[in-house]
Formats: sequence, structure tokens, C-alpha cells
Amino acid sequence: MGAIDSAVVDLPEAVARASLVVICTPVESVPQYVELSLRHAPDAGLVTDVGSTKAGIVTEVARRLSGPDESRRHGRFVGSHPLAGSQRAGVEHAQADLFEGRTVIVTPTGLEPAEHVDAIQGFWESLGAKAIRHSPAVHDQAVAAISHLPHLAAAALAAATPAQWLSLAATGWLDTTRVASGDVEMWRQIFAANRACVLQSFDQFLQVLGHCREALERGDDRELVRWLLVGKKVHDAVGD
Amino acid sequence: MGAIDSAVVDLPEAVARASLVVICTPVESVPQYVELSLRHAPDAGLVTDVGSTKAGIVTEVARRLSGPDESRRHGRFVGSHPLAGSQRAGVEHAQADLFEGRTVIVTPTGLEPAEHVDAIQGFWESLGAKAIRHSPAVHDQAVAAISHLPHLAAAALAAATPAQWLSLAATGWLDTTRVASGDVEMWRQIFAANRACVLQSFDQFLQVLGHCREALERGDDRELVRWLLVGKKVHDAVGD
Repeated sequence: MGAIDSAVVDLPEAVARASLVVICTPVESVPQYVELSLRHAPDAGLVTDVGSTKAGIVTEVARRLSGPDESRRHGRFVGSHPLAGSQRAGVEHAQADLFEGRTVIVTPTGLEPAEHVDAIQGFWESLGAKAIRHSPAVHDQAVAAISHLPHLAAAALAAATPAQWLSLAATGWLDTTRVASGDVEMWRQIFAANRACVLQSFDQFLQVLGHCREALERGDDRELVRWLLVGKKVHDAVGD
Repeated sequence: MGAIDSAVVDLPEAVARASLVVICTPVESVPQYVELSLRHAPDAGLVTDVGSTKAGIVTEVARRLSGPDESRRHGRFVGSHPLAGSQRAGVEHAQADLFEGRTVIVTPTGLEPAEHVDAIQGFWESLGAKAIRHSPAVHDQAVAAISHLPHLAAAALAAATPAQWLSLAATGWLDTTRVASGDVEMWRQIFAANRACVLQSFDQFLQVLGHCREALERGDDRELVRWLLVGKKVHDAVGD
């Protein structure tokens, strides 16, 4: 496909002359590769990642680099999370304009030199993305609601569909369950890393579902319409 | 757009020489227009509809045409439900190949002459659709699981998303909540007409959600992965 100019399987060798390293692995592996990159990249090299959770990664990177001469290295890592991609994996689904117009959350801890945060933000902006900043903790709350809970809801909805009706599934069912198609091990790690925030979002969802169910059971059309309208307005305010 | 050859606002006049009438209104209005069409279309004219619920419509049409000379008219109505379309409404979203390759459920009661059911099925097949037959009651159970519950789940998910994070919503959230964008009054009528079946599907969904939530809270990754895998497999078996 022409997507890879040079491939190296040894990380220290791969980053030896890198001015920027972007770690793209499931979240549980991110800290070890960040650490390795920081140790083997040139002194001026920066490291970021694209993990879907941030607080755990940042804490673990800090823990791994806690020696007296390591804080300088630690300040060369700034976490990122591009809100782009799809349920598909593999280079055959690569897309040159993947980040064009998409949001990337950069998650400084406040301990990094400002110019490093600016550099990481500039990197994403050079790919056409809109970069914004949140603390790792705030990031994790936000994506629990906007990404992690929808994944669980989609998976549960697909899992709850009786097999005998699947042949009747049309675009609506496919849209609503699409994200459930994502890599399961990748998602296991995300849920393990963001358990508390996902549970909080989950309970807000269950509460709204409870209201809808009660309205449906009571035949309270006004209440049901109220929720349908909120759902429609919120969706339509976001996009198509 | 060239989509409409001739427009008439008076139904009796519109159907006076029709060999086939297709009623496309929200479900609560279908029976009255079916009745009116059967009374004013030529004796050989057939009537169908595209309503998303069927048992209520069929019962109400039968009730409206219960006189001794009406049963002949009643047998000229055969319900249909094309599983196609989108959350969009209006002629500007018309699509000539909308039914190409899509499933249409034809819902005979068993009281219609076989040739009428064949004719309605043939009509949908002439548009490129795959027509299958189910009783109105079985149809309503199937679409509760495959269409009506996903709509409620999507609306509840959108409604439960905190406003401050909506600017971060990406394709995953938009896919998962897309159907919530459908016309609210149309959906109110669907839920009112298919309450019992939707409640049954709703409770199956809540049960799976409960298992997922418990696994998440307990940190039981194996159980959570089990549900993620079921969801992924079910989705991937259906489509993209």
C-alpha cells in the first residue's frame, strides 16, 4: 500500500534517531513502550501515545521513571488520544486523512515543559486535527461517556438480539451495534483501565433506560416522547 | 427531483383507478387510509402499507371492514414492512434503489386469497427487494428486537450523554445513536402499537446490560470479555 517507509521490530533501534515517537498499542502495553522509547530516543526526542485511557498510563509512566535523573525523560512524554479511527484494524484500513477535522485530546499533567505539550499539539494539528487539552482524569471521564459506554451498550444490544431475527437486521441495527465489532482484547484493556468512570456513565445510562421502560410499561406516551425528543435533539446537535 | 409524476390530495380521487395502493403514513393513520382506499379503489385494486407494526393494523382494518359484503374488500389488503429507509424524511431524501437487496416482510393473516399475497410479494420483488412472509404477530416480535429496541437504546444513550462532552463525540457515538434522529411522533406511534413486544426485548437487553455491569464492577474480565465477544460475533455475522 505504500503506507510504511521502513519497518523495524526492535524498539530501541527504531527510536534511536526519532524526534517523535507515537506509541500505538493496546493501553496496557503503552507504559512499557513509552519507557523504552524515552530511554532509547535521542535526548531531544518526544514521545506520545494514542491510548483510549490516560490516567493509568500517565501514572504508570511516572512510576517507571521515578529515579532522580529520570524526571527530565518523563517530561518528554505527553499523552494523546485521537478521537478517530474505526472498528477496523490493520494497515489495509489505513487512511491518509484519518485525522483531518477530527479532535485529538492532548493530556498534559502540568509537569511537562510547556514547549513539549505545544510540540505534541502541533504534531496533531499538522495532520489536520483539532487538538484540545484535558487533564488525564477529565479525559477519562469524558471518553467513558462518549466512547466506552457506547461500546458496552452496542455489544450488549447485539448480544441480546435473538438469533432467529438476525436475518432481518437492517441499517438501523447495524449502525447501533457497529462499534461492538472492535477488537475485544483492546476493549478489555480499556474497560479495565477506566472501570470507575465507565461504571458512573453506565449508571446514568441505566437510569435513563429505567425511565423509558417505566414510561413504556405505564403507557405514558408523554414521558416516553420526552426522552425520545431529548435523544433526538442531542444526536442532531452533534452530527449526522 | 422528478420523483412525483402526479400529486392528488384527495384519497378517493387518488385511488379511483389504482391497481395497487401503498399507504405510507405513521402507523396509527394506516387503518383509516387502508379502509378508504379499499372503498374507493377499483374492485381488482390491492392495498398494502409500509407500517413498522402489523398486528394492530391488521386487527383494526378487519374491524373497520366487518360488514357482510366487506370481507371481499378486506382480503384485498395485505400488510408489508420494508426494512429499508433511514432516519431522514422528505422527498429530497428519495432514493430510486432504496429497496434493492433489502428485506420486505409481507404479513398475510391467512384469510387473504393466495394470489393477492403473491401479488404484493411480487410488487416488492419487482423493486429488487427480498420478500419474506411472517404472521403479523411474529413480525411484531421480530421488529421489536431488531428495530424498536435499538431505537430506544440509541435515544437513551444520546439522552444520557453529559452535555459537556458532546463536542468530543466521534463516529462511534454518532453511529450508535444515529437512529435516535428519527421522527419522534412516528416512533411514539410505533411504541404505542408494539408495547408488549418492545417491553419483552427491553428486558432481555437490560438483563445483558446487568451482566456486563456486574462483570465490570467486580473486575471480572473473563465474564466481560464473554459478552464483548458475543456482541462482536453477532454484529459481524450480520454485516459491516
